[in-house]
Amino acid sequence: MKTIIVGGVAGGMSAATRLRRLDETADIIVFERGHYVSFANCGLPYYVGGVITDRSSLLLQTPESLGARFRLDVRVDHEVTAIDREAKTVSVRQTQTGALTTESYDRLILAAGATARTGITPAGLATRTLRTVDDVDHITALLAGVTGRASAVVIGAGFIGLEAVENLVHRGVHVTLVEFGSQVFGPFDAEMAAPIFDELLVRGVDVRLNTTVAAVAADGGVELSDGSVVPADLVIDSVGVLPDTSLAARAGITIGASGGIAVDGSQQTNDPSIYAVGDGVEKIDAIDGSGLLITMAGLANRHGRATADSIAGEPGSASPALGTAILGLFGLTAAMVGWSEKRLVRAGRAHRVVHTHPASHATYYPGAEGMSMKLLIDPATDAILGAQIVGGSGVDKRIDILATAMTGGLTASSLTRLELAYAPQYSAAKDPINQLGYVAENLAAGTTRAVQWHELAAARAAGAVLVDVRSAGEFAAGNIPGAINVPLDELRDRLAELPDAPLIVHCQVGQRGHTAARILSQNGLDVRNLDGGYRTWTAGVTSLGLMPTAITMNSDRIPA
Amino acid sequence: MKTIIVGGVAGGMSAATRLRRLDETADIIVFERGHYVSFANCGLPYYVGGVITDRSSLLLQTPESLGARFRLDVRVDHEVTAIDREAKTVSVRQTQTGALTTESYDRLILAAGATARTGITPAGLATRTLRTVDDVDHITALLAGVTGRASAVVIGAGFIGLEAVENLVHRGVHVTLVEFGSQVFGPFDAEMAAPIFDELLVRGVDVRLNTTVAAVAADGGVELSDGSVVPADLVIDSVGVLPDTSLAARAGITIGASGGIAVDGSQQTNDPSIYAVGDGVEKIDAIDGSGLLITMAGLANRHGRATADSIAGEPGSASPALGTAILGLFGLTAAMVGWSEKRLVRAGRAHRVVHTHPASHATYYPGAEGMSMKLLIDPATDAILGAQIVGGSGVDKRIDILATAMTGGLTASSLTRLELAYAPQYSAAKDPINQLGYVAENLAAGTTRAVQWHELAAARAAGAVLVDVRSAGEFAAGNIPGAINVPLDELRDRLAELPDAPLIVHCQVGQRGHTAARILSQNGLDVRNLDGGYRTWTAGVTSLGLMPTAITMNSDRIPA
Repeated sequence: MKTIIVGGVAGGMSAATRLRRLDETADIIVFERGHYVSFANCGLPYYVGGVITDRSSLLLQTPESLGARFRLDVRVDHEVTAIDREAKTVSVRQTQTGALTTESYDRLILAAGATARTGITPAGLATRTLRTVDDVDHITALLAGVTGRASAVVIGAGFIGLEAVENLVHRGVHVTLVEFGSQVFGPFDAEMAAPIFDELLVRGVDVRLNTTVAAVAADGGVELSDGSVVPADLVIDSVGVLPDTSLAARAGITIGASGGIAVDGSQQTNDPSIYAVGDGVEKIDAIDGSGLLITMAGLANRHGRATADSIAGEPGSASPALGTAILGLFGLTAAMVGWSEKRLVRAGRAHRVVHTHPASHATYYPGAEGMSMKLLIDPATDAILGAQIVGGSGVDKRIDILATAMTGGLTASSLTRLELAYAPQYSAAKDPINQLGYVAENLAAGTTRAVQWHELAAARAAGAVLVDVRSAGEFAAGNIPGAINVPLDELRDRLAELPDAPLIVHCQVGQRGHTAARILSQNGLDVRNLDGGYRTWTAGVTSLGLMPTAITMNSDRIPA
Repeated sequence: MKTIIVGGVAGGMSAATRLRRLDETADIIVFERGHYVSFANCGLPYYVGGVITDRSSLLLQTPESLGARFRLDVRVDHEVTAIDREAKTVSVRQTQTGALTTESYDRLILAAGATARTGITPAGLATRTLRTVDDVDHITALLAGVTGRASAVVIGAGFIGLEAVENLVHRGVHVTLVEFGSQVFGPFDAEMAAPIFDELLVRGVDVRLNTTVAAVAADGGVELSDGSVVPADLVIDSVGVLPDTSLAARAGITIGASGGIAVDGSQQTNDPSIYAVGDGVEKIDAIDGSGLLITMAGLANRHGRATADSIAGEPGSASPALGTAILGLFGLTAAMVGWSEKRLVRAGRAHRVVHTHPASHATYYPGAEGMSMKLLIDPATDAILGAQIVGGSGVDKRIDILATAMTGGLTASSLTRLELAYAPQYSAAKDPINQLGYVAENLAAGTTRAVQWHELAAARAAGAVLVDVRSAGEFAAGNIPGAINVPLDELRDRLAELPDAPLIVHCQVGQRGHTAARILSQNGLDVRNLDGGYRTWTAGVTSLGLMPTAITMNSDRIPA
């Protein structure tokens, strides 16, 4: 059996090494059009920033090491240019010499990945994407050649763009971040991205939302769509990526509606001899079974292995994708799994929302850091549809717990049952995940009724009165205009002061508001709790551009 | 409805506050025999160590704050001495005045917790347990009064004992740790506890295994069962705890076989008006449904809340317990969930074992720390029976993922499917949890056959030959006596050198051994891989006292 693999990074190389472990006798050839195989894509921005100092550490394997250990025939600088499905051959071009060869296959694995989707990148400037070792070598060489403080424009405030920003700032570069959309970090809902936006401002990044790059200015700077001109020694184009499907498409391989190569649960394409994995392939969404694009190294590795299992005749199918993802930015961590609220809204899918603001561990133990969590729930089934978390330490742990809970089919309410490891330096006796579950359970049981930050204005316009149950000191330090302040501990004695109207109560993060709502509803009043409290509301209105002052996550203290 | 709660810390107070939120009109009285309610038990050792400096931060609530917010009638220094189940009354003694009163109830919640199971504590020395605020006040006062370097004997190397050791060392106290058993940290299997033992030695702790305290020596020191005498200004007795069931037992409440108060899924005792929660109560084991004792704040809180739900007529049942637990010790973290191997062996229950030694995150990104993982699997069902992890950062995250996977009913093999958040500072493209799943899957599918460290000697005695597939340099730096060294990359070319005998291959952590085993088995040889490699074997023989030199986790480098 002879298998040819097109692309030698995450998905392709996982398939190759697993296939060898399953079959000592297989012929395995890996063609990689670039000069490097099995390199650490996800580490590239950190080499630009000088966080990773040893370039060779990014090159996890070489053709020689893979040959010695796995008897793989790895040919770098070789581009597969065509597939003859009838003859079961591929045409291959040596990229340096241009030499053309033909190679036959029994099985073909397409793992060419994705290519950068370039935005409007003005000619005449050193514009690079940040996808390959070559990109990184060029960027570092260019920055090293700048006299004085370098300036860069980064286009696109997604994962790669924000990682580029962090690392450029870390190198002392002045950065202008240009984002077409109305918020940074588009995968997040706007109110959850507010701390990221604020962190960028704190770090001196010039963030331009609702903006694109128009042209190179006369003086060599970059002209933006708002007419302003910003200096730039370098433009990094991180608008996004597109699956590299041209080879497959030319050979008549079916491309899915999402734009990625369509595969079945065994990673098989419409040609039973041809498989595909990685960023070039359409994934199956775990929430609704639709086809979608997710470009994650973890999925590429997992599906690569599953492909090898399929070819070797082992049972093994690639499961649907949750889209778990994480971003580190200046000590802040932002992570997500499943669907966002805006995606649920776009899809017209019913959902329930929970916002909380817990501490990473028991607040009486030093070093606790705050985080903001958002959970999205199917109100009919109590299934978890998605989650977003942003904060300091412990964010990665909580998103992984939620991803595992989703894979295990746990409902939102059953998060209360999770028995998570507790000592005060690691968690709280009720872990933030348990707390999410308690709020979800109260909503599901009708013990609490909630109103979301973006529903507040309409509810008040319809006659609802807002009652802030925080202390007088907290109220004085900042409040929602027009709210009445009745501290929680005085509420039972001051019921007579409350107006005869639907009430919305709120506190700082939602917990005291819940207790207040319980008191009032048991006294026969019509009451809802502002989900996530003042903190979520503040983040929400900031994200809409309605607040002059952004909240600062890092300087925000743990809630009392 | 009038509810009396006996005990005002974790379980009792969770029940009280939840009950109030569910029922504004309930009469709720909390009797606490101590002087403090709702204090941070789990923080007490860290106040002794000076890590937590603000004593008031340990006192999470006061009777006054609970009265103001929740209208709870909290009476500290009040001990409930008897229950009259017929009359539905309790007898209460004010511990300072001795005044006796009787209070009626509709519902009674027993939440008296556990009491320290004192070991052989010699009279004449300042011996304290470490369970209450009073204990901590006494210990800190005593240490403050010592001239020169203080010495302490800590009895019992479990959770509390080890936390006491860490904090005493942190204060500069010389510590002798006396443990009756043959290993430290008894909840762990011996080989997994080896890094903890070694860390104690590195920190200068005098660890005495297989030892008890015999008497106070003539010179005021502590005489141990081996006849030696060690100095001690203080003895901390952390042998363990026993459920405090005397009040319940005197009233005819059923006590379970484990020694804790027996309750049903609603925390109800055999008297339908009486509930019980917390450390005094028997839990239901999630693995086999048996009754057992687990003293964890998280369970106490969860079950306290479930009790309130039951009393208020809400659906809500306390689910079985996994026994998730975590220990921090000098920067090392040790965590576990479910059953240990020794418990499985004792129960005669079939099990499969996986040991791995991954890094906390991608090794090309700075700061990765090593960890050792152990997974216990039901070979018939592939169910996860338990796990242990010891190492640096990221241990807490991985044990929580496994606890969640167990709650969600995920099999060991399906850990491969978990889509965990990956960026290089947080994880690897194949997270350590995915890697555990891959090893488990290979074992379940028969792709790999394994031998455990403690089976090696017998297998070799029966004729198996050990082949070390690490590099010549690794072999020279330390090897298992009698092993043949054939580096993995040379293995295919040196098959003829291998003896005609059953083979056991091993590498440093098990991964190269797996590849070697695949090569050899496909060449028709009878081969098994030494699970966890040289590292697990070293920890294992060290734990048996068979190795003169212990391995050091903290100084151990990430595997290449």
